[in-house]
Amino acid sequence: MKALGLIVEYNPFHNGHLFHIEAAKQTVMPDVVIAVMSGNFLQRGEPALVNKWYRTEMALLGGVDIVVELPYRFATQKAETFALGAVSILNALNCDSLCFGSEDGDINSFLNTRSMIEENNEQFQQYINRYIKSGISYPTALKYAFNDLAPTDEMVNLSKPNNILGYHYIEAIDKLCSPIKAFTIKRKNAEYHDEHFASETIASATSIRKALFSNKGDIDRFVPISTKDLLIKYIDDFQEFHQWENYWPLLKYRILHAANSELKEIYEVEEGLENRFKNAAIQSQSFQQFMQSIKTKRYTWTRLQRACLHILTNTKKVDMLTQIETPSYLRLLGMSEKGRNYLNQQKKSLQLPLISKVSSFHGNGNLDLELDLKASKLYALGLSEPYQTRLLDLDFRKPPIILKR
Amino acid sequence: MKALGLIVEYNPFHNGHLFHIEAAKQTVMPDVVIAVMSGNFLQRGEPALVNKWYRTEMALLGGVDIVVELPYRFATQKAETFALGAVSILNALNCDSLCFGSEDGDINSFLNTRSMIEENNEQFQQYINRYIKSGISYPTALKYAFNDLAPTDEMVNLSKPNNILGYHYIEAIDKLCSPIKAFTIKRKNAEYHDEHFASETIASATSIRKALFSNKGDIDRFVPISTKDLLIKYIDDFQEFHQWENYWPLLKYRILHAANSELKEIYEVEEGLENRFKNAAIQSQSFQQFMQSIKTKRYTWTRLQRACLHILTNTKKVDMLTQIETPSYLRLLGMSEKGRNYLNQQKKSLQLPLISKVSSFHGNGNLDLELDLKASKLYALGLSEPYQTRLLDLDFRKPPIILKR
Repeated sequence: MKALGLIVEYNPFHNGHLFHIEAAKQTVMPDVVIAVMSGNFLQRGEPALVNKWYRTEMALLGGVDIVVELPYRFATQKAETFALGAVSILNALNCDSLCFGSEDGDINSFLNTRSMIEENNEQFQQYINRYIKSGISYPTALKYAFNDLAPTDEMVNLSKPNNILGYHYIEAIDKLCSPIKAFTIKRKNAEYHDEHFASETIASATSIRKALFSNKGDIDRFVPISTKDLLIKYIDDFQEFHQWENYWPLLKYRILHAANSELKEIYEVEEGLENRFKNAAIQSQSFQQFMQSIKTKRYTWTRLQRACLHILTNTKKVDMLTQIETPSYLRLLGMSEKGRNYLNQQKKSLQLPLISKVSSFHGNGNLDLELDLKASKLYALGLSEPYQTRLLDLDFRKPPIILKR
Repeated sequence: MKALGLIVEYNPFHNGHLFHIEAAKQTVMPDVVIAVMSGNFLQRGEPALVNKWYRTEMALLGGVDIVVELPYRFATQKAETFALGAVSILNALNCDSLCFGSEDGDINSFLNTRSMIEENNEQFQQYINRYIKSGISYPTALKYAFNDLAPTDEMVNLSKPNNILGYHYIEAIDKLCSPIKAFTIKRKNAEYHDEHFASETIASATSIRKALFSNKGDIDRFVPISTKDLLIKYIDDFQEFHQWENYWPLLKYRILHAANSELKEIYEVEEGLENRFKNAAIQSQSFQQFMQSIKTKRYTWTRLQRACLHILTNTKKVDMLTQIETPSYLRLLGMSEKGRNYLNQQKKSLQLPLISKVSSFHGNGNLDLELDLKASKLYALGLSEPYQTRLLDLDFRKPPIILKR
């Protein structure tokens, strides 16, 4: 059976995602589609709108056959680490291909870029370090360093977010010596951060979330009916969507009451940030206000959001940096009948242990899995009671969703 | 000038307190009355109904001339440490006398008890340790050990909470070799924990708080009009009174996300409690429910409440146990004109530095003062915005209240 891999967040699953799956299927004609998906917290250091189980169901109803979780240690990281974690999982699941969306849309541009950077890697790293030392953020340093290497028209524009991710997928395939063949599909219409509805049927997840939180603008034309139904069900079940502001009282408390020495132990809290955080927290009445007052040229909004998330989950440098470089398990969140057949067929050749239910796997003391569970508990604390309690222990007990169709 | 000392919490100030002040004044005819008062958190490990500034004003309007704060390190402790901290402060302020309320009401009983225990101290401690080892709480062990010493009718009943405190005041005066002369006045009518209104004009603070939180029962006959006015003003200014439930979301978050090794560092979190706390927290939707599920024969409710408070303020064993045994400053919260005259007169003979405004004293790195400030920040986090921000930094900036009359 031929397996196509996707790397996704589905926050929430919308028509652009549906289009991508359909286009990818037409390109490689797979037997099954496997998505590795961020859990309750996303690459930008944000809580997902709805929990991983609802997003898994959206994915299955949208045509994905197997959904596996990208562990917290990889999901909440810069593009390079995120990509390495995600590609490792697809590789361990014996995927044949990976199809990603990009602003560029031509896989050769990515391969050319990768070759060029690999050939000039030493110089590339020197450029990056020089820019970082001058006080600018990592993504900007990457972009400048790439420009300094004098790229041609046959290479991708590394200032576009999906191109950057795509580049790192190719790099990860290389690093892992994986047989996965990469494809890319040009993203339709919506720019990644576009906050407005620009097309008839496709809008960015950002603009959809904005519409949901503001109660302005109808999202019906931009999402499959299954997504719409699940979003309504989420409100029925948990009363609200998740957003950073829900976690602000906890973050403020923690920043104000942690010792400086404790904050310094947290992953991505670099020297000096702890004081900056404390001074800003005492004066801020909302997460937005807090973020506005801590951002600097050196640290992107995303980078600081991730640091805040790690403070909340109490994730330390030692938790993130002393583990092996790639994921150590496959956490199955959901599957279709076809997906189940694939997993049965592959059972003996999967390259990592498959976890169906954490309560059965628990006790092995896997640090990455502990991080996932801590993150899920935190995610629940963004809700009020009794919804909070309903979600608090769910991840520990819940078996994968099985879609019959 | 002759100074009478009182040790108080005033949660809130009521007619019983007024009666005590008047009776004490008649007994010793002082020039000034000095109260050492717990700050925002009390001996039972609870947040005070209203903040220390409002309670200071109640005290000044009730006839107290000087209000000095009992630091967190002493205020949130078992009777022995609470008493030592409070008596030290009255001693450092050169008080001539201390008058405390008790169930017993006869100072000779206390002095006899103190002599007897001092003479049999070694045996007394052995008895206490034996009972504690058998798995009962410290206060119960104390009571049993005392009974084993075969007390006579001329001694106090050490199973009554105010008698126990009184005993420790006498003990502290002894330990400090203080010239303070102790008096006691029998408490009128209300038992300490009495939850019902039993008298015409005097009710326990517990029953008054209960009436305030339940909005049932009129408190007017039990508190001076000044207290009533200040309680109404508190609601105007901050929208609600403080109670443990306000802090439950923060406590639950902290218990669930602290590492076991971190919880074990917290003062009063003894071996094994950290797991008990974690298991109970995940299943509890309120502080009451949580407390019900963690209490054991070994640990009193009060003891566990204090442990919870220390978790919230992130107060470690090292913060509480490695400091000198007595307070290191006098934090002035308020004074009358007469109080100001007394302090001016005593200026050069006060035995500890007097802090009028923390922002002027800050930077000396006094650990006890840091604890007080952390506790005040936490206290503010029990309110919603914008009230929270109004209170958050207050303790750092606010000068003492001066009552003109």
